[in-house]
Amino acid sequence: MARSLQHMLLGRPLPTTAMLEERLTRPRAIGAFGLDALSSVAYAPDEILYALLLAGAAAARLSLPIAVAITALLLIVTVSYRQTIFAYPHGGGSFTVARENLGRIPGLVAAAALMVDYLTVVAVSVTAGVQAIVAFVPALDTHRVSASVAGILLLMVVNLRGVREAGAIFVLPTYLFVGSLGALVVWGLLRVTVLGGVPQAVHAAPSAAVEVLTPFLVLHAFAGGCTAMTGIEAIANGVPVFKRPEARNAAATLSTLAGILAVLFLGVTYLGQRVGAVPTAQANVVAQVGRAVADGPLFYLVQLSAAVVLLLAANTSFNGFPLLAAIIARDGYFPHQFTKRGQRLVYSNGIIVIGVLAIALVVVFRGSTHALIPLFAVGVFLCFTLSQAGMIQHWLRTRGPWWRLKLAVNGVGALATGLATVVVVVAKFAAGAWLVVLLVPFLVMNFLAIHAHYQRTREELANVGPSPDPHDLRHRTLIPVHKLNRATAEAVRYALSASDSVIAVHIDDDGAETRQLQHTWQAWCEHPPADRAVTLSRGDRPLVDYIQRVQAEEPRQPLTVMVPEVIPHHWWEEPLHNQSAFGLELALRYKDGIVVTTVPIRLHR
Amino acid sequence: MARSLQHMLLGRPLPTTAMLEERLTRPRAIGAFGLDALSSVAYAPDEILYALLLAGAAAARLSLPIAVAITALLLIVTVSYRQTIFAYPHGGGSFTVARENLGRIPGLVAAAALMVDYLTVVAVSVTAGVQAIVAFVPALDTHRVSASVAGILLLMVVNLRGVREAGAIFVLPTYLFVGSLGALVVWGLLRVTVLGGVPQAVHAAPSAAVEVLTPFLVLHAFAGGCTAMTGIEAIANGVPVFKRPEARNAAATLSTLAGILAVLFLGVTYLGQRVGAVPTAQANVVAQVGRAVADGPLFYLVQLSAAVVLLLAANTSFNGFPLLAAIIARDGYFPHQFTKRGQRLVYSNGIIVIGVLAIALVVVFRGSTHALIPLFAVGVFLCFTLSQAGMIQHWLRTRGPWWRLKLAVNGVGALATGLATVVVVVAKFAAGAWLVVLLVPFLVMNFLAIHAHYQRTREELANVGPSPDPHDLRHRTLIPVHKLNRATAEAVRYALSASDSVIAVHIDDDGAETRQLQHTWQAWCEHPPADRAVTLSRGDRPLVDYIQRVQAEEPRQPLTVMVPEVIPHHWWEEPLHNQSAFGLELALRYKDGIVVTTVPIRLHR
Repeated sequence: MARSLQHMLLGRPLPTTAMLEERLTRPRAIGAFGLDALSSVAYAPDEILYALLLAGAAAARLSLPIAVAITALLLIVTVSYRQTIFAYPHGGGSFTVARENLGRIPGLVAAAALMVDYLTVVAVSVTAGVQAIVAFVPALDTHRVSASVAGILLLMVVNLRGVREAGAIFVLPTYLFVGSLGALVVWGLLRVTVLGGVPQAVHAAPSAAVEVLTPFLVLHAFAGGCTAMTGIEAIANGVPVFKRPEARNAAATLSTLAGILAVLFLGVTYLGQRVGAVPTAQANVVAQVGRAVADGPLFYLVQLSAAVVLLLAANTSFNGFPLLAAIIARDGYFPHQFTKRGQRLVYSNGIIVIGVLAIALVVVFRGSTHALIPLFAVGVFLCFTLSQAGMIQHWLRTRGPWWRLKLAVNGVGALATGLATVVVVVAKFAAGAWLVVLLVPFLVMNFLAIHAHYQRTREELANVGPSPDPHDLRHRTLIPVHKLNRATAEAVRYALSASDSVIAVHIDDDGAETRQLQHTWQAWCEHPPADRAVTLSRGDRPLVDYIQRVQAEEPRQPLTVMVPEVIPHHWWEEPLHNQSAFGLELALRYKDGIVVTTVPIRLHR
Repeated sequence: MARSLQHMLLGRPLPTTAMLEERLTRPRAIGAFGLDALSSVAYAPDEILYALLLAGAAAARLSLPIAVAITALLLIVTVSYRQTIFAYPHGGGSFTVARENLGRIPGLVAAAALMVDYLTVVAVSVTAGVQAIVAFVPALDTHRVSASVAGILLLMVVNLRGVREAGAIFVLPTYLFVGSLGALVVWGLLRVTVLGGVPQAVHAAPSAAVEVLTPFLVLHAFAGGCTAMTGIEAIANGVPVFKRPEARNAAATLSTLAGILAVLFLGVTYLGQRVGAVPTAQANVVAQVGRAVADGPLFYLVQLSAAVVLLLAANTSFNGFPLLAAIIARDGYFPHQFTKRGQRLVYSNGIIVIGVLAIALVVVFRGSTHALIPLFAVGVFLCFTLSQAGMIQHWLRTRGPWWRLKLAVNGVGALATGLATVVVVVAKFAAGAWLVVLLVPFLVMNFLAIHAHYQRTREELANVGPSPDPHDLRHRTLIPVHKLNRATAEAVRYALSASDSVIAVHIDDDGAETRQLQHTWQAWCEHPPADRAVTLSRGDRPLVDYIQRVQAEEPRQPLTVMVPEVIPHHWWEEPLHNQSAFGLELALRYKDGIVVTTVPIRLHR
């Protein structure tokens, strides 16, 4: 029944040959890789305004210049990444580029930053998706956390099933979102320019200025708005899944994607300022612009498709994180278990880990996108910077045609993203970026410790030792016995087949019970088979110490403790039987020369 | 470190000889056994008013007559239980009395009802304790559920440590509670009678009547108020721990306890009506009377001691439930594990189960005492009735001196409590009593199924089978091999000591890897020891099916699958190693003739 439940939730196990790949055309690729980047329009304009409005409503006029600056940065990053795509046609994620060009530690730093990035993308996207629905179903607001947790659980189950048919699911909502939001922006621009009569957002006016408009506040707004750029690196990672010519198609897709993102981001930010939007936990800038400009079907379409796209954006991390975990686990920097594929051929452990951690994040941050953002931006920009720095090293090393120009492009990219990283860390430090600043080195230290451990283990296991000799052939067995029944008898028969010396031990405080048991015992086992000894002895409490004393008598021979374990006929009867072997196994786990085995006694009724 | 944490929380393991008993004097016994009964004053008067006030404020005048009727029932129950005490000086809990006199099924019904009773006592007492604190720390109200859960967790930890020094802890708060509440009642009666000028409760006036004052509503009030009597049976259960003469001391303690309870219950109910108390989730009748009559140190003392006494009342279930579970587990009606004492000599499993279930109840019912009450009363009165019915049978059977009179007393008791049970079930059915009405038979059916299972198992294991013969001595071993290293080598050496035929299996899709491995393998193990065969074969996926085919080749011999398991030097490195043996063990758990063993390969660095 447990298995049926598993099949219902996760589907039947797949044969290994089912691992197919499907190459992507450019339009489909926008759907598959653009989710994370495009969906950031749902929170990036908000972050600019959250910061600026601290200095009063008038400061909102700075939002457009800041958005333009961010778009310029986006342009630089896009041009830089186009070069990465051509240089690494087999996939040039920041981890690969940093490791190959900068060495082990920067590679691991990139891996750690990417892990944090994947994790925060899930939390931010899912909570923003819930927020998009709250904008037209206000009653959901009080269930924000539960709704987000439910969303993450849904993603976990879907991904544990495996999402091979993914392509089509992604393309439609992405185009719906781009189309409807694009229409909204165009209609909004028409209304505020040609048609005149600027509509106003209906939300509460911002409270009076609580801070002065300092350069620091502007940097703060810039840092928050930079989250618009997240996800732009996804294509560089996935070049091999494009149709031929892979690199050219990928680069063209990247440019298109960046173009769409720039238009939507600038449009929403500008309209947000014009309609006087004040981002709140209940309605983001997109929602407020929608309500003000086109409060009707278009508004609902934008919000609904935004919610779906955000959920799907979170889904990209459910692919990315387990894959990254598997790669660094294969290199020995992460537990081996993450390299194992489950029954549905997905990296189940990675999927479960990111799901559980994302749920924890959402619960701790009470489902607030705005509260999660400071954790988010640092990881993203750290990856950008490491990747660009790696490309500089790449050009210095390979020196192909036009290498000086390419070096300059990536140099500008590295400088710009590096500066942006510093700005993000400084501006958002107190708000939560400190957590990432601590977490990344902590993760890297763990990667190194894990690697050292596997290295030591490999060395220790490398020495095979001499080939088996006749001296190895003696073996003793100890069986804890409560009384003589079929379970004991089966265990003794099994032990005799494995060992020439079987010691049955009856734990007994005064020995009287043991003497009694010895009578039945001798009657049953009067003549043990040739050259095998079967004895019944009295043992003292605690059993664990007694076993160690027995082992110490013949330290050169293995001593196997055989615990008869009754296995009921139906799985639901399992709780009715003692798992006493488990306790013994745990207690003797680190003791040399002792093996604990359970001898299964299977019931047939 | 896991062990240190356990020691810190639970204390060091105790030697078995530490099981001491301490006989109780009458005054101490009031503290130890009176908690549950006395603390019910914190919710029983409320339940009367909750029902009556549905018919408007004027209906509250009926509360005193109802309380008098309940007190009369208390008198009947007390007299009946005094007889039980003398008849069962070794402990006459309702389970014992019902089983010995009425037979197996009524005994099990009593056990089920008692389990429900113990569980609901924890939930009701802890939430009522939190309510007592909320009455003077209103800010706690929003954290009602977390505070209750924290209280239950505290009780779990304390009881897992073992509470031998309990006596003194219980006596002081009980007397403080009785003393302060007694003083409050006396002072209140003085004010409303001699001094004149009746103070009024400050809480919101009751809303207008929403129901007509029907006899059903009166029964409802009666049923709720009957919770005052819970816990009165505790002494009958614990006669043996009294100082000699046990039965007389126990009976005298019971009478004293009932007297105190009657005075406090009647006093609080009467004063509650006079001051116009309207019970709410924030302040119960005791708290409202306290505020009205003596808003000062006395009020705080009553509330604080009430909270402590309620927490300690919940504690009594943490003794009672595990003990009951152990008793019926010893008789084979409950899983064996409940008979095992943990390292601190307490029935750890029982403590954990009641704690977890109580937390679930508190969470589901959102920490509301009033919502939990309907579940509570049914179990209590079912136990009363079965116990009294058992006593009738007892007198019919034993016919000692005055047996007709004693029979009459218990007859009246059985009739009265039986009627009360019916009233409680009918009045509270829709509000939650239905759950208990379903749960008790469900538990009884489970007890019977468990008993039948153990019976079948015993029968199946009874047949020891023939004594071991030489035919038993052959034994085959299979080792899954990835490559040849120390882990594989140690596993092979161990297998050779246990078996004359060792099959190493390398899972390989095309066989090329296996052929390569065979070279190194033969170099290492060129000459296997005398009369033992060591082969390296290629196996197909899935391994589980391959193993079953190998077993089927020689179905009469045991096949042991030996999985080398690397055990790191430090426990915190455990997550870095695969527990692949566990999966194999699970997959082969129900297959005859196969034993799965992990061969521990211990690392020393």
